[in-house]
Amino acid sequence: MPVIFWLAPASAILALVFAYVFFKQMLGYDEGSAMMRKIALHVREGAAAYLRQQYKIVFLVFMAITVIFSFMAYGLGVQNPWVPFAFLTGGFFSALAGFIGMKTATYASARAAMAASVSLNEGLKVSFRSGAVMGLVVVGLGLLDISAWFIVLNLVYPAAESTHNLLIITTTMLTFGMGASTQALFARVGGGIFTKAADVGADLVGKIEAGIPEDDPRNPATIADNVGDNVGDVAGMGADLYESYCGSILATAALGAAAFLAQPAIAINVVMAPMLIAAVGIILSIIGIYLVKTDEGASQKKLLKALGLGVNFSAALIVVFSLAILYLLNIPNYIGIWGSILTGLLAGIAIGQSTEFFTASSYFPTRKIAEASTTGPATVIINGIGTGLISASIPLTIIAVAITMSYLFATGFSFHVSGLSYGLYGIGIAAVGMLSTLGITLATDAYGPIADNAGGNAEMSKLSPEVRRRTDALDALGNTTAATGKGFAIGSAALTALALLAAYIEEVKIMFVEFLNMPEFAINGKEGAVQAQHATFIDFIYHYEINLMNPKVIVGVFLGVMAVFLFSGMTMNAVGRAAQKMVDEVRRQFREIAGIMEGTAEPDYARCVAISTKAAQREMMLPSFVALLIPVVVGLIFGVAGVTGLLVGTITSGFALAIFMANAGGAWDNAKKYIEEGHLGGKGSENHKAAVVGDTVGDPFKDTSGPSLNILIKLMVMASVVTVGLAVAYSIL
Amino acid sequence: MPVIFWLAPASAILALVFAYVFFKQMLGYDEGSAMMRKIALHVREGAAAYLRQQYKIVFLVFMAITVIFSFMAYGLGVQNPWVPFAFLTGGFFSALAGFIGMKTATYASARAAMAASVSLNEGLKVSFRSGAVMGLVVVGLGLLDISAWFIVLNLVYPAAESTHNLLIITTTMLTFGMGASTQALFARVGGGIFTKAADVGADLVGKIEAGIPEDDPRNPATIADNVGDNVGDVAGMGADLYESYCGSILATAALGAAAFLAQPAIAINVVMAPMLIAAVGIILSIIGIYLVKTDEGASQKKLLKALGLGVNFSAALIVVFSLAILYLLNIPNYIGIWGSILTGLLAGIAIGQSTEFFTASSYFPTRKIAEASTTGPATVIINGIGTGLISASIPLTIIAVAITMSYLFATGFSFHVSGLSYGLYGIGIAAVGMLSTLGITLATDAYGPIADNAGGNAEMSKLSPEVRRRTDALDALGNTTAATGKGFAIGSAALTALALLAAYIEEVKIMFVEFLNMPEFAINGKEGAVQAQHATFIDFIYHYEINLMNPKVIVGVFLGVMAVFLFSGMTMNAVGRAAQKMVDEVRRQFREIAGIMEGTAEPDYARCVAISTKAAQREMMLPSFVALLIPVVVGLIFGVAGVTGLLVGTITSGFALAIFMANAGGAWDNAKKYIEEGHLGGKGSENHKAAVVGDTVGDPFKDTSGPSLNILIKLMVMASVVTVGLAVAYSIL
Repeated sequence: MPVIFWLAPASAILALVFAYVFFKQMLGYDEGSAMMRKIALHVREGAAAYLRQQYKIVFLVFMAITVIFSFMAYGLGVQNPWVPFAFLTGGFFSALAGFIGMKTATYASARAAMAASVSLNEGLKVSFRSGAVMGLVVVGLGLLDISAWFIVLNLVYPAAESTHNLLIITTTMLTFGMGASTQALFARVGGGIFTKAADVGADLVGKIEAGIPEDDPRNPATIADNVGDNVGDVAGMGADLYESYCGSILATAALGAAAFLAQPAIAINVVMAPMLIAAVGIILSIIGIYLVKTDEGASQKKLLKALGLGVNFSAALIVVFSLAILYLLNIPNYIGIWGSILTGLLAGIAIGQSTEFFTASSYFPTRKIAEASTTGPATVIINGIGTGLISASIPLTIIAVAITMSYLFATGFSFHVSGLSYGLYGIGIAAVGMLSTLGITLATDAYGPIADNAGGNAEMSKLSPEVRRRTDALDALGNTTAATGKGFAIGSAALTALALLAAYIEEVKIMFVEFLNMPEFAINGKEGAVQAQHATFIDFIYHYEINLMNPKVIVGVFLGVMAVFLFSGMTMNAVGRAAQKMVDEVRRQFREIAGIMEGTAEPDYARCVAISTKAAQREMMLPSFVALLIPVVVGLIFGVAGVTGLLVGTITSGFALAIFMANAGGAWDNAKKYIEEGHLGGKGSENHKAAVVGDTVGDPFKDTSGPSLNILIKLMVMASVVTVGLAVAYSIL
Repeated sequence: MPVIFWLAPASAILALVFAYVFFKQMLGYDEGSAMMRKIALHVREGAAAYLRQQYKIVFLVFMAITVIFSFMAYGLGVQNPWVPFAFLTGGFFSALAGFIGMKTATYASARAAMAASVSLNEGLKVSFRSGAVMGLVVVGLGLLDISAWFIVLNLVYPAAESTHNLLIITTTMLTFGMGASTQALFARVGGGIFTKAADVGADLVGKIEAGIPEDDPRNPATIADNVGDNVGDVAGMGADLYESYCGSILATAALGAAAFLAQPAIAINVVMAPMLIAAVGIILSIIGIYLVKTDEGASQKKLLKALGLGVNFSAALIVVFSLAILYLLNIPNYIGIWGSILTGLLAGIAIGQSTEFFTASSYFPTRKIAEASTTGPATVIINGIGTGLISASIPLTIIAVAITMSYLFATGFSFHVSGLSYGLYGIGIAAVGMLSTLGITLATDAYGPIADNAGGNAEMSKLSPEVRRRTDALDALGNTTAATGKGFAIGSAALTALALLAAYIEEVKIMFVEFLNMPEFAINGKEGAVQAQHATFIDFIYHYEINLMNPKVIVGVFLGVMAVFLFSGMTMNAVGRAAQKMVDEVRRQFREIAGIMEGTAEPDYARCVAISTKAAQREMMLPSFVALLIPVVVGLIFGVAGVTGLLVGTITSGFALAIFMANAGGAWDNAKKYIEEGHLGGKGSENHKAAVVGDTVGDPFKDTSGPSLNILIKLMVMASVVTVGLAVAYSIL
């Protein structure tokens, strides 16, 4: 292993060390009054109980899949023997990242509330440093695991001996990504259903029917709502971005190996490049996190500037350092590849800006939605859906441009077929660039829910309204700085999914060659037809298997879109059903427990937590199985051609639907807040009620179905990569 | 021209003759009291005024496009000289079909109301025969125009001389389809915005705020609402299905010519087959229409049976007769092609059944949406969107199966590349089979709005409630029988779009060959690269231009999905904006015109009609231009590869979104009706109010954006076919 490689595991460990330091620092803060500690404990226990339940089920699912993978690897021989283990560790570390994030957040909420009662700055420090724990844990665990597998597999299949070995290493590591994605999907779907069932239930009965404010301790669903923030927004987001981070690095590495099959000396460097860019990104993130600090009594503007300074510092320096890394590694056309990285960063920023434009109440789209409330909830919904659909077209266009440019930069401005592999590598590394500073961008994203929870704690423990105002300000601040981070997350999802798709085709090539050397597989009689028509199997793959006029490919695209619609419909309905159960329960408690509204009796919080937990566990199964099974079933029926089409359909329509849902949900949320700020009649007006309907509809859009889709599109590709042997050897058609 | 060909124009003329007879018969009925005549006149004038306005604008658009096409044909030489004329006639006849349908409907409404006051059976006769006028006009004009162009072009490029000539004929005729689609898009988008602005506006203020019933003459928007039914549901639907009908025949004919380039004797028959199946379908439709009659005083069950008899008779016999035609024409593998037709019919029926299941209140999905009203409008919306998304997955799966089976039947159960063209022909003819009996299925579909309008007239002219009950029964009856017809329309849209896509690739091949023979076009230097790599240009196209790993193709798919989301968002927002204007106007009239609510003063109906007209004219432009320009722009930048990807993205995601919107809208509508029938608290309850919000959101879903998408997916392909020369000769990348 070249010496420079060790930068990757070293900086990963560094990230974990700093995460530990920040965690300890946070624990050193005062957790406040007995009441505050009690509420925090309630939330912490609820969240831990939920995650225990969820991990139990996910563990069983992982066991089942591992058994199948073991059978494929050792029984059928259609898989690498390391696959089952790689799959397991990916799942384990993804779960661990989510768990640590959740623990940190639940320890931090009361402390952040207490700190915010001292000053805004103190509140920022506690919540931001807690968010940084999550950011650094995600990147630290991610890069550490990638490095570890790279080292282990290199011992078994020495990359120095042949580039084919390197290709086996990188494609096996994709299985690790599939483990992470599978866990992330369960975390997002389950956590998303939990949090939105509680949120929608609490809002519908509490805010609309009983007329009590958000986070009021008289609302039986309020603890469940706060637990939901931790298991959905924090643990779910942690698992999600862990998956994105690893996925982008692994896919790019696999494409790097494929691009230089004939040149082993170059190949190893090209494979290491994404890991090393990520390593430098970690170091820059840590420095960036330390830059986020202000004087006592700083204005909000100054705070915003402080946060921006940290993020922008890291982003700017990664541009410089990635060029240095590419140069040092002797990457061919390193200026071009650097252009690809720049393209990715710019695309991420542009997507973030467009999200901001479509969802912030300072721009006209969200204002129009707010104004539609004067004609009732129906027009609020119509406008929100219309605006959401339109808003999706911008990131789709940006991604189209980004694909074109990052490809062209990498190939030296040519669409010639011979440059295909390297061009695809350019697309992959653009995603790596966006996510390389995830350590700090995730910190700015994750501290929002922490500040939000701190506000909840402040409300329930009846701290002065000033504290709530400060935590709200921190939350809002987070939303602004998080825009860029979210743009990176969304943009990288599309590019990573594409890079994974390209890696799938590479894996198909390996499989085809492998099976042809095994006389017991006749590839279903395809062999004869293939050899009659095509000079080589590679030619066959390009000419036939991924040809858009092949009806199997077209059928695949239809089924890919089908999978996306089915999956999002299922998750939407799951939230609907779970929320109705919550509403029934909250209504029952208001009716049956005397003295709740007067504050003389305590509601049964635990019961609401239990309802959300049970609903989330049950409802997350079916959509997740859909995601895992469809690629396998399509592969078994329609073969590689069907799967290729399937993935293209899923990636493109899934990406579009995810953005539509995220933006419509965000816009409804902010339209409601805009009215609550006193416009159009303000809180309690008919307009406000109409806007609350929009916000409620938007909840599962932006926090359940939308974010789950971002994982779905990658998981389906990885599931295809891992089960490619089945599609190649056993497909019916 | 073979003698058997003349069956096509002959049966087309027969259809028009019978349409004229039915029209005259309808005019012979009594138009009722002075009040009824006055209302009918109001609606008729409003609708005529709107169409005049619309056709004026569409005329200008057609002129502009014709100039561009003329320049392409005569200036650049990238187009056949007949293209501009074919384009114009397609638009003209599509508009004519819509106009005649609208005229018939507006003459029929008062007469149907009057007839319904005599008996249910009389009401059925008048409204069904009027619907039949529309059905027969659409198929008559469609097949007549196709035959006429086939005859004319055959004189210029004698098909008997070379199959290449036949290919030129069929691809030129596709331009005719583009004209029809362009007009249909304007009709659907404009009409859809008009009708939903009026409907939503009338409902929001009338039903919800003022608490007066539907179609109450005190509501200022009520005439506009009824005008809307005629220009949206009737004229829009007529233009829409005219486009579908012609599109399926033309696309299949083009593929037939391409499949047998080397065998002229076979080719001409394969090209004629779809026209002749359509011809027989017309004759069967006319017989079927005559079968729809019952005894005086028949029960509703018996009426339903009568309608079903006509539709099923035609559908069953077309199965038998199409086999005979294929046999007589000596079509290769005629049993297989017949299997493709059967596949199409079964797929259409299955899609109709799935629509029924997801949108009828007798099944649990719609019941669940109705029950969600107990927790308010937000859960109604969440459930409706969830169910709508899930419901889209069924037709997507059905279409995937239908593509596979109709392809395999045509090729004799092989996916071998050599069978590609004929397999695609099989997919096209499956769509022709579904639409061949459009004469009668459209009659059962179009008579619904006529019965609905009759009900409106009865309500406004204060006929006895019994009359309204009867027209409602007729309307409901129509909804039931129309399910199959709608299934055929939706299913055929997807299959036709695919067949058109295949025709696009054929056109690309012709263009490539053509430009290579013209030294002044270097095809942007592609030539060298191409020749270096590929044995033939055809090989180049298959290997590179439509290869899914070509980044230009992938970018195209992203942009195709983008176009769909942008278009539907724009149409949704257009309805939202127009409806808000209508609400403001109705509120203003209630406020300013004293005595409206007491019935002593007449509201200003004309003003509401004018508002809808103006809004529809303005709002229809931008989305329509998006549809027309995107394929051209993508072609000019990314070339054939980009366009191919674009079309695949548009077809698949557009189809999915169209069904989602249609089903969600239908389910909300019926959930509301279910509550109005007395369930869950009935009319006026909080549940009912929540369900009305769902219904209102569903209005633009099911009547504006959804149906427009069905046209969009075909129009974008046809626009690509017609401008293919630009993409081949002038693309930048």
